[in-house]
Amino acid sequence: MHTSTALFTDHYELTMVDAALHAGTANRQSVFELFTRRLSGARRYGVVAGTGRLLEAIERFRFTDAELSFLQENKVVRPETIDWLANYRFSGDIWGYPEGETFFPGSPVLTVESTFAEGVLLETLALSMLNSDSAIATAASRMVNAAAGKPLAEMGSRRTGEHSAVAAARAAYIAGFNATSNLEAGRSYGVPTMGTAAHAFTLLHDTERDAFVAQVAALGIDTTLLVDTYDIEQGVRTAIEVAGTGLGAVRIDSGDLPVVVAKVRRLLDDLGATNTRITVTNDLDEHTVAALAASPVDSFGVGTSVVTGSGTPTMSMVYKLVARQDDDGAWVAVAKQSTGKASVGGRKSVRRAHNSRGVATAELIAVGDGPAGTAELAELHGRDVLVPLMIAGDVVPGYTGAEGIALAREQHRASIAELPHVAMSLTRGDPAIPTEYR
Amino acid sequence: MHTSTALFTDHYELTMVDAALHAGTANRQSVFELFTRRLSGARRYGVVAGTGRLLEAIERFRFTDAELSFLQENKVVRPETIDWLANYRFSGDIWGYPEGETFFPGSPVLTVESTFAEGVLLETLALSMLNSDSAIATAASRMVNAAAGKPLAEMGSRRTGEHSAVAAARAAYIAGFNATSNLEAGRSYGVPTMGTAAHAFTLLHDTERDAFVAQVAALGIDTTLLVDTYDIEQGVRTAIEVAGTGLGAVRIDSGDLPVVVAKVRRLLDDLGATNTRITVTNDLDEHTVAALAASPVDSFGVGTSVVTGSGTPTMSMVYKLVARQDDDGAWVAVAKQSTGKASVGGRKSVRRAHNSRGVATAELIAVGDGPAGTAELAELHGRDVLVPLMIAGDVVPGYTGAEGIALAREQHRASIAELPHVAMSLTRGDPAIPTEYR
Repeated sequence: MHTSTALFTDHYELTMVDAALHAGTANRQSVFELFTRRLSGARRYGVVAGTGRLLEAIERFRFTDAELSFLQENKVVRPETIDWLANYRFSGDIWGYPEGETFFPGSPVLTVESTFAEGVLLETLALSMLNSDSAIATAASRMVNAAAGKPLAEMGSRRTGEHSAVAAARAAYIAGFNATSNLEAGRSYGVPTMGTAAHAFTLLHDTERDAFVAQVAALGIDTTLLVDTYDIEQGVRTAIEVAGTGLGAVRIDSGDLPVVVAKVRRLLDDLGATNTRITVTNDLDEHTVAALAASPVDSFGVGTSVVTGSGTPTMSMVYKLVARQDDDGAWVAVAKQSTGKASVGGRKSVRRAHNSRGVATAELIAVGDGPAGTAELAELHGRDVLVPLMIAGDVVPGYTGAEGIALAREQHRASIAELPHVAMSLTRGDPAIPTEYR
Repeated sequence: MHTSTALFTDHYELTMVDAALHAGTANRQSVFELFTRRLSGARRYGVVAGTGRLLEAIERFRFTDAELSFLQENKVVRPETIDWLANYRFSGDIWGYPEGETFFPGSPVLTVESTFAEGVLLETLALSMLNSDSAIATAASRMVNAAAGKPLAEMGSRRTGEHSAVAAARAAYIAGFNATSNLEAGRSYGVPTMGTAAHAFTLLHDTERDAFVAQVAALGIDTTLLVDTYDIEQGVRTAIEVAGTGLGAVRIDSGDLPVVVAKVRRLLDDLGATNTRITVTNDLDEHTVAALAASPVDSFGVGTSVVTGSGTPTMSMVYKLVARQDDDGAWVAVAKQSTGKASVGGRKSVRRAHNSRGVATAELIAVGDGPAGTAELAELHGRDVLVPLMIAGDVVPGYTGAEGIALAREQHRASIAELPHVAMSLTRGDPAIPTEYR
């Protein structure tokens, strides 16, 4: 296990640094921007996630002897460049959308200002973290909207890589989920963890009753009993016989949920277990959650669909050089002209425009000034979006650790609240607000 | 950073162990099976990947003080269970499909034989690793088939979580990719790494020519020049002017590839650069790779689609208790009866049946005997599929580390070679061979 994050990087970042050092262009001041050209999955909005993880990872982006000897042995860069890498420490500024904020096509989610060599090295790491975490947060946010106030738990660890599972639990929590099944997410990020038993526990025992007795004996009557291993109706009856009418909840993991849930609620009520909750967990996504809105479900457990971004596992974010200084120190806006992949050059600031009722109406991007904003935009009704995340290589306090996660949850709640109603639509379509360049 | 893998685990695995210890059922000998009910994405076959990583992770599955204090502080289990966890070390047997092998619906990709408590704890970790790595290997294998012998490089790190990117590079390599952009995959797994420059490198310089001069000066004329930042035709001309006709390769990352590639090949030939190769990297997947089969492309770089499983980011594998002993030591086959999620109970062995020409004709699964095989199946033309991966808690040599990856690449090549031709179809459809239970 290595604690350095420096090799979560594409080979070509290193060869670019190598060639730029050789050419004397490595130290040109540069602006890289992380953004997406369109909202993947025709989502109505995106949700920024991964920022806090990224800031922490940049602090551990160091080429120690272990990394340098790999690069040397494999001749990834020339020997002179090894010395430069040994001293590498990002010393630039990073501005960006605070984690939890919503974003739209063209939104400069991160702006990295540093020398070319310092900034280009962060491309792969920044994209890995923000593309995957934001895709999950975006899917999760749609599910939270669909659940209309009922609690959601993330339980998809088994359907994504073991480390991505931890990041997914964190991203879903930022987007409004209430808990996760993943213990490492509990330890690393303080996300509340939950869970009681799988079908295997019932099958281990000679009868379903034995299993319920065993579970209640160890976990108490406030536990959740899984009632669909054999016959759901019999399972519910046995559950209440064993635990009494004070049973915390029953879980249903199969079947035609709207029908089954209604039956189980009636049965629980008939048995006197009127306070026993119903939780459902059968391959849910935002659409099936929405379809259960009118059912007497008390909470949802969502697995595969949230950790895989519900059909959209990446937000297609890119990391592009948008401006650099020339040899005289003058800023030059740059942009490639590749077919279908054009980008907008120049340093930018952003204001989320509001109407008189405080509803967001547009993502205004002013090209030419830096991220600290422009007087022109500041006069428009709305709010500035960009915040400084790192200054001269130091993380701005508040955006990392447990504090950062709490802030991101609040940021997300506030940002969603100001979006127009069309943002809540689960169908594919245009972004909820247009992006306008000034 | 923690080296223990024990918390890559769902909360409910721990509460099940807790309740089973309390009930006296935790030590019942049990058989868990990891399999999929159907091939996600209507693939014609699946490719097992992640096995070597899993075996290494099981060796690090230990509850040290750091894990135990988290569990204690959060009251995940009763205090008595903390002591049991402190001594946890998997001591059972694991049989399975060797990494790189193809699999089909019902194939027992892993069979875990141990006490209930020892085996149930591995559920989440095993599924996380095998579901994601196998989805990537399966997508990658289809791309390798589509490329018809031309080399493929994996370069999708930026479109998946930073750790998943490393696992993805490894999985794609097992399925026949030749290289990766990911440096950590080079260090951790010995996958060859490659890459030269992005558009940012061209934009950093005052002209495209300056950029090419800088790159060739540092990396030599055998490098790959990216020619589509501005105008491709001019880019190619400049590339050859700068590097000469001995230039290694040009890379094209945009445009209508079949048309552009043909033009660039003609231009390179006209300029005398007949040995300069063409590599393409524009959002490729198995379908676009296949569509370029007749084009003069020399190699492919594939990003997003391979690391996200090309529309199928998980293989929907599950981990189920299929047999256990009762209090008298007799084996009982078990299976839940949940609607649409029934499984086949019992211990199993597997034989890949062949016809007289050595072509695979069926996945034969014999229920009732253990994974070491049955005399009945052994007489059929074909080969046994299951191998022992761990015996009494010790990893069987050969399946981990660099040795395991080399073996998995060879296993994959051999397994694909014996599949019927329909397996190569890229369209959605039935599995290439049927699964038959005996």
